[in-house]
Amino acid sequence: MTTDVTVTDEAVASLEGTADPRLRELLTGLIRHLHAFARETGLTQAEWERAIGFLTETGKMCTDTRQEFILLSDVLGLSMLVESINGDRAAGSTESTVLGPFHMTESPARELGANIDLVGGGEPCVVSGRIVSGDGTPLPGAVLDVWQADGNGFYDVQRPDLQPPGNGRGLFTTDAEGRFWFRTCVPSPYPIPTDGPVGELLKATGRHPYRPAHIHFIASAEDHTPVTTHIFVAGSDYLDSDAVFAVKQSLVEDFTPTDDPSLAREFGIANPFRHARFDLVLDHA
Amino acid sequence: MTTDVTVTDEAVASLEGTADPRLRELLTGLIRHLHAFARETGLTQAEWERAIGFLTETGKMCTDTRQEFILLSDVLGLSMLVESINGDRAAGSTESTVLGPFHMTESPARELGANIDLVGGGEPCVVSGRIVSGDGTPLPGAVLDVWQADGNGFYDVQRPDLQPPGNGRGLFTTDAEGRFWFRTCVPSPYPIPTDGPVGELLKATGRHPYRPAHIHFIASAEDHTPVTTHIFVAGSDYLDSDAVFAVKQSLVEDFTPTDDPSLAREFGIANPFRHARFDLVLDHA
Repeated sequence: MTTDVTVTDEAVASLEGTADPRLRELLTGLIRHLHAFARETGLTQAEWERAIGFLTETGKMCTDTRQEFILLSDVLGLSMLVESINGDRAAGSTESTVLGPFHMTESPARELGANIDLVGGGEPCVVSGRIVSGDGTPLPGAVLDVWQADGNGFYDVQRPDLQPPGNGRGLFTTDAEGRFWFRTCVPSPYPIPTDGPVGELLKATGRHPYRPAHIHFIASAEDHTPVTTHIFVAGSDYLDSDAVFAVKQSLVEDFTPTDDPSLAREFGIANPFRHARFDLVLDHA
Repeated sequence: MTTDVTVTDEAVASLEGTADPRLRELLTGLIRHLHAFARETGLTQAEWERAIGFLTETGKMCTDTRQEFILLSDVLGLSMLVESINGDRAAGSTESTVLGPFHMTESPARELGANIDLVGGGEPCVVSGRIVSGDGTPLPGAVLDVWQADGNGFYDVQRPDLQPPGNGRGLFTTDAEGRFWFRTCVPSPYPIPTDGPVGELLKATGRHPYRPAHIHFIASAEDHTPVTTHIFVAGSDYLDSDAVFAVKQSLVEDFTPTDDPSLAREFGIANPFRHARFDLVLDHA
């Protein structure tokens, strides 16, 4: 028989038949924290009903191209926290940051130097650098998965009417010297989608929905730990108030205005252009 | 700029523009407990992804007649906890218990004595008693909202092909002496729906999905605090292991085998029958 005093222990005890000890540990922690939250705040029945309704609406917003629960986790800082507690990397290695909700389609494999800006919406730029190991050894054949919003702040999956699939995305393989380079447009700050429950939450909490300008990367190489990260555009608005708390100082890079006709010719881009240059440093596995 | 050390405080600080102080308090508690859960368990990226997927599936199971998030809250003991911390009632008043996920359609108004078992599936019984105030004063014109599963353990909304809408449901008004009575079938223990994510969770934790036999009630009367509760059938299986932790000793009632032809005639029921008799005691508001 259950009372408000016993219900938490009863719920935890009900897990004793759980085959997977890790699942039991996670559910035990979840029950204890959920219950402590309800007790400490004195959660009312009406507030609980509101929360049930919110979660239900959040579920209903999810489609193959929209992940409202990831967005919710993002704006609560949970995604960044989980990423951080798991992203322990050696000093000097590229820091990780959140995956975000838009890595949902496979990036098309592209040749080094290709332009991932298929619609020509923004300021042309070149992104180049190397993928290297912790000791500086270049990693040939490393894979760089890239995705970014277009010049208007939208990913291809958000605007299938205006962007071809794969716009702003590319899967590149480093050359014999571990180098990568590709063309794109300078990304813009953009609001996370606000037409769902998470947008309502931001509005109710007086928060803006913007993310500073960034390009997403997942870099991976044999015998190395992959890194999921972004590069943020130095000087972008919202670097200090990212709606999803994902900015790390080490990930802010200059997109340098470059006036160099011969380099522009080499990259196949109009002069002048912006140029972001950085290495991605992977930990040996 | 964010680190795993600062992200929780940053997320909490982001709420400072929240217009509603109670919303700010709730979200602050939610963020702190969610983050503490992730830190204490060392939640991995893969586990976080699994959780996002689980919540998404839970949302997708929700329809007008299926509330998988309430079910999730129920099996985690959260519903019973919220109900309990809000259900403080005077000594001697009827205790409350969880609403459950099946109070989703309006109960049809019925005359006292009506049979809510429209399909005739189980053992016939009479439920009768009074709605009274804390001092024992009968409450005429009080409203009793009743819902229960049929003899096979399903609610009308779960089996629209086999049960007419409103089967097992009724909205009764007490007579001049505060009395209510109606006919039904003795409820059976039944499993909560197991064909969704919550069913998977129960399976993974080695828990059975059964609830002991019960009838749901919401009793309300002018100038009194309504009570949401169940009556459990004494002797039912699962009274000590309700899948949703909702059993309170004071809510267990005898459904007494009764062989009384004249009483049977009075109630318009075949003799012998089962008879549950109890009063519902409401707190003065």
